[in-house]
This record gives sequence, C-alpha cells and structure tokens, in this order.
Amino acid sequence: MKIICSKSDLSTGVNIALKAVPVRTTMPILECIILKATPNHEIRLIANDMEIGIETVVKGMVMESGTVALDAKVFSDMVRKLPDNDVNIEVDESYRVSITCEKAHFNLLGRSAEEFPGLPAVERERQIVLSQLTLKDLIRQTVFSISDNESNRVMTGELFEINGDGLRVVSLDGHRISIRRTQLKEEYPNSRVIVPGKTLIEISKILSGEADSDVVISFTGKHILFEMDGTLVVSRLIEGDYYKIDQMLSSDYETKLTVNKRDLLNCIDRATLLIRESEKKPIILTIQEGQMELKINTMIGSMKEDLDIEMEGRDIMIGFNPKFLMDALRVIDDETVTLYLFNPKAPCFIKDAEESYIYLILPVNISAAV
Amino acid sequence: MKIICSKSDLSTGVNIALKAVPVRTTMPILECIILKATPNHEIRLIANDMEIGIETVVKGMVMESGTVALDAKVFSDMVRKLPDNDVNIEVDESYRVSITCEKAHFNLLGRSAEEFPGLPAVERERQIVLSQLTLKDLIRQTVFSISDNESNRVMTGELFEINGDGLRVVSLDGHRISIRRTQLKEEYPNSRVIVPGKTLIEISKILSGEADSDVVISFTGKHILFEMDGTLVVSRLIEGDYYKIDQMLSSDYETKLTVNKRDLLNCIDRATLLIRESEKKPIILTIQEGQMELKINTMIGSMKEDLDIEMEGRDIMIGFNPKFLMDALRVIDDETVTLYLFNPKAPCFIKDAEESYIYLILPVNISAAV
Repeated sequence: MKIICSKSDLSTGVNIALKAVPVRTTMPILECIILKATPNHEIRLIANDMEIGIETVVKGMVMESGTVALDAKVFSDMVRKLPDNDVNIEVDESYRVSITCEKAHFNLLGRSAEEFPGLPAVERERQIVLSQLTLKDLIRQTVFSISDNESNRVMTGELFEINGDGLRVVSLDGHRISIRRTQLKEEYPNSRVIVPGKTLIEISKILSGEADSDVVISFTGKHILFEMDGTLVVSRLIEGDYYKIDQMLSSDYETKLTVNKRDLLNCIDRATLLIRESEKKPIILTIQEGQMELKINTMIGSMKEDLDIEMEGRDIMIGFNPKFLMDALRVIDDETVTLYLFNPKAPCFIKDAEESYIYLILPVNISAAV
Repeated sequence: MKIICSKSDLSTGVNIALKAVPVRTTMPILECIILKATPNHEIRLIANDMEIGIETVVKGMVMESGTVALDAKVFSDMVRKLPDNDVNIEVDESYRVSITCEKAHFNLLGRSAEEFPGLPAVERERQIVLSQLTLKDLIRQTVFSISDNESNRVMTGELFEINGDGLRVVSLDGHRISIRRTQLKEEYPNSRVIVPGKTLIEISKILSGEADSDVVISFTGKHILFEMDGTLVVSRLIEGDYYKIDQMLSSDYETKLTVNKRDLLNCIDRATLLIRESEKKPIILTIQEGQMELKINTMIGSMKEDLDIEMEGRDIMIGFNPKFLMDALRVIDDETVTLYLFNPKAPCFIKDAEESYIYLILPVNISAAV
C-alpha cells in the first residue's frame, strides 16, 4: 500500500473512526483501526466494537492499494502530532508501516486485517432523511433520560418512531419521559426501532450540526445505518417492545403556569448546592396567587426564592428531584416554559403548545419534607 | 455582622482564599473560610492550611462588624451560583448566617472563628519588590524541576537568592537544574531562602500577570510574605542549606549548537508518542556536519527526524530523557535556543548569552541503546 493524504484530513478521519474503538475488549484486533486503500482510489478508515461500526472516507491519493490494521491509540496519537502537511504512508507485505511527513519519519509494525470483523451489511430499503442539525438536536434533547441500568435493555435505548412525515424520539428511565417530535421532508412508511443510547451519543459527536447537510438513516430489523459526509455508522438495534407511552400522557391539568426558563433553571441550580451527594432532598414548589416559591431544606441549610409566573387554575404545592427539572429545562431552547400540574402525586408535564416537546416528570412525596 | 458587597468581588476573594483551604485535614476548622468585617469598614476573607495562610480584602460596606467561620466548599459554591448583583450577608450571635441576593434567600449555620489559627506575623524588614508578571514568569520557568520526593525537603522547594540588585531562582531534582535570573529595581542586602514549591504554585495562580502591578516579598528566617492587590499570602520557608549549585555549572564545551526552539520541541514531542508509560527510552541526538538527527527506538516502533542547526566544535552523539528536554524548551520564550555539550556523559546546558536562564540536563547512558 502507498498513499498520500493531508494531515488534517487524516486526523479528522481517525477521530471519527476512534469512536468505534472499544476501551476494553477481549479481541485485540478490535483495538485497531483498519486503513484500506482501494484500487478505485479511495482511502477508508474502519473501526468496529461489535456494537457500533464506523467507516469513513479520507481524501487523498492512492498509489498502491492495500489494507493494514494499525493500533488505534498509537496511530491516532501519531497523526495528531504530525506537522500540518502531506503525510506519506507505505506498507510492505510484512505489514511494516513507514509514515513520513516533512522530515519526520516513523516506522511501526502493523498487522493483517484478515481477522477484523467486517461491518454488517444493511439494506438501504427503509430510509429517512433529515438534517444533521435536527438529528443532533433531537439526541441532545432526549438522551439524558435514558436509563443506565443494563438489566432493562429497552430503557437504555431511545425509541425512533416514524409516522407518516413525523419522527418522534422518546427516552425514559422510570422517573421521567422525554419526547421530541420533528417533521420530515416527506412521508415514510410507519416504523418503530429502539436505538442504543451509546450509539446516539457517538453519532451526535460525529454529526456536524449543520442545518444544510443531511444524514440518511436506514434500518432493518436488527441494524440501523447513519450516512453523512462520507461517514457510515452501523449499529445494532435493541430488540424488544418499547413501552406504550401514549397511555402515560394526559392533557388534563388543574394548574398551568408559565415562567421564564432561565430564571427557573438558575434558581433550581442554586438550590442544589445545598444538597450533599448522598442526600435526596426535593425542591418544593408552592404555587399561589401568581407567584411560585421554591424552597429546599437540607443538612447544610435552607434556601427560599420567589419567581414571577403567569398561572391558571388551582394553587398547588408539589416536590421534585431538582436534577430532573434541570435536565429538562437545560435542553429547552425557548425563553419561557409552561408547566401543567394535576395534583401533588401526578406527573408534571413541561410542553409547548404544538407538543414539539413533552417532558414528563414524576413528583416526589413531600408529606414528610414539609 | 452585616455587610453588603458585589457578587463578583466576593467571588474573586473567595477563589483566592480557597487556595489555602486544605483538601484533607484533621482540624475541621481549617475547612472554613473566615469572614471578618472590621469596625474600620474592611471586609476580609482568611484561610490557613498551616503551611500557607491567605488574607484578602473584599470591597463592600460594613453595617455591623463581626467574624464568622463558614464551610469553604458550601460558601464558595453558593457565591459562585448567586445572581450577579449585590449580596447581603447577616450573621446573628448564634452564627446563623442569612445570605440574600435579589430574590434568592439562603440560611446556613456558621461557627465561631475562635479556634481558627491566625496567620503568623511577619516583620516587614527584609523586603524586595518586583512586578507580578516577573514573579509569575520566574515561577513558571523553574517550578517544573522541583522534586516531589518528600524525603528530601530542600529539593521540594526553590532557592530565592538575592545578590545586590539580582534575584536568582533555582530548582533541581537530581537529574536537572533550572536557573532564572532577573534584575531588581534597586539593591537589597544579600539573602538566601528556600520557598516550598506548593506555595509558589498557589502564588502563581493568584498573581495577576500584569507588568505594571507589583508584588512585595518580605521574609524572616521562618516565613515569607507576598503582598499584592489587597491580598497577603504567608508561607513557611523550608529550613536547611540549599545545594551549592555554582560548582555544578561549567562554561566549558566541545560542541555548541543553535536550533529553532519550536521545531526541536515538536520533534521531541512526536518522538515521545512511541514511548509507553513504563518504558524509559532516551531520545538520541546525533550532531554532525551542521545537521542534528533525532531518533528513538521503542517497542512500538521507531522515529527519525533531521533538524537544521548552526554548530561549532566537535561532532557528538548523546541521549536524553525526552521529557527533561521538553520541560525546559516549553518555558523558554526565545525563538532559537543554544545547547552546549561537552561529552556524552557530561551535562548539557541550554542557556542564553546573558545567562538570564540556564537549564542543566544530565544525559542518559546510550551505549546499550545504540
């Protein structure tokens, strides 16, 4: 193999591939990145941790095709530290790798890529297209409420549900549900798949966040494939049935209130500094006559703060895990938020008028805390 | 006690005082910051870990004088998260503290400051004055080569040596010596003190780095006192005799070479990525006919790179711990550096013509590595 590419293109590609290199593995070959130069002049980097596989194209010239497996850590560190110029890579039949950039000259021992497990083939039948920005936002705005409890696999993923031209993304962890909806550019056949949270976190690091470049998502019963900017990410899907969340959603309420999002978030954030890690103290909201009082009482001390609100309906006092409120508020990009409450034991809904987002949060029993 | 000050002034002061709050201690009172409002309308924050003591003035209004000890972690977290506005602090006779900022209202329990150990009094007899920038630079450029081996206390500090209008700062760890010299604005009586490395690291975080604001340093036999911008830092000195370094310095050389500093540093940096943590591999410099070849051979692979140099004297091949070369090169702010070599077993000197800096580095035996 003999190729030339720029340090910056190579570095970008290696950083993408690294996201599928496992931290720990019993299969040493998975600690490698595969460098592949094809006879039709494409340079590809491939990595696979058996859950997620990534293949990405690097611009460059192929003088001689070939394939080699390179230790991902050594190769990525090296590429990062090369001078910002053209990089020459040559590999002989014994997988001796020689890398030259300006006057720097490295020799490494690579290995055969034979044992490396290829990426699963995914038929591109069921496909949807959305902008990279939209997908990145959808993930950011829901991924915090997946569960990290591996004993319930379904909860460690997110539901991607396609219904005509609507895409709904759902995550839940037993205490809260996060739902985001977006409109697709065209109609697609209805589908429901459960995508592992880990995949979404890695994908969201690769997505450029640009509104005018697209990502194409294909899925079969077992796999999901994301394609964007010359990069291809394949992941297993989580098998099983997702929760029937529609029956958990209700539009009944007794109290509706609107409040400035930043003020509410900052106030709860201040309250949490009175909580030591081991303590589970609720923040108590007393909603009365157009005012909301937030208060917290812990071993360290107490805090009380009033916020101006607009309200409809009955007065109420209700307690929440402050972290759950903050997680939801942080990913809502609106200036004000509206909360719908029913009674001190029923979930609180934070949602906008179009229900482009719904955050359901279960309250905490405060009879003891008051 | 009753005071008002701005959140930002209070926050700056608390961050300075925090540097003398110990991470672990057997004396719980040391985990506090003392807040003191004096009858002459000064607000002071005080912390002391028994090695370093800090006292800093916060601008504000004193309505009622008093003193209280506040848990440093809780108080600093709270101050950081307050809205950016005036902060009212009131403390009653039972040390109940009430902190109000805009609509946020905190209650905490403070404690008496009675058991808190005061800062040692340092007579301001032997004093020198230099700019904050100069002191910050001197520390940054030498502190990396103090030893962390507590069994040799003298090596964990830096020598501050005053000779007429010259200040020389020295650190050494048994493999290398770092020396920086600066000229003071006036003549002072000769003095030698050993300042703990930890003190210098904390001081350098507090120093503003401005060339036109000064720091006044006073010392007695046991303590050193730094005063700048309303902040006072007292530290114990290390007792004992410092090494006689002048007899280790030599101006003899057989080879003198000048090289671009950034090129040399980047080249060594690239070489180090072939070194696994446990390995101790030298970088080998072969200096010959106006060229310097750097090479390294490790379990991972090998690297070779040529650099252009200007040289005088004999050809030489010599090996170094690459980290020691990099540490020195990183803190030299010149575009080119000059190395003076004698033989493969004698130390290398990196110094400028005026000897405003001298970095002595011992070579590594490479007879086995070649």
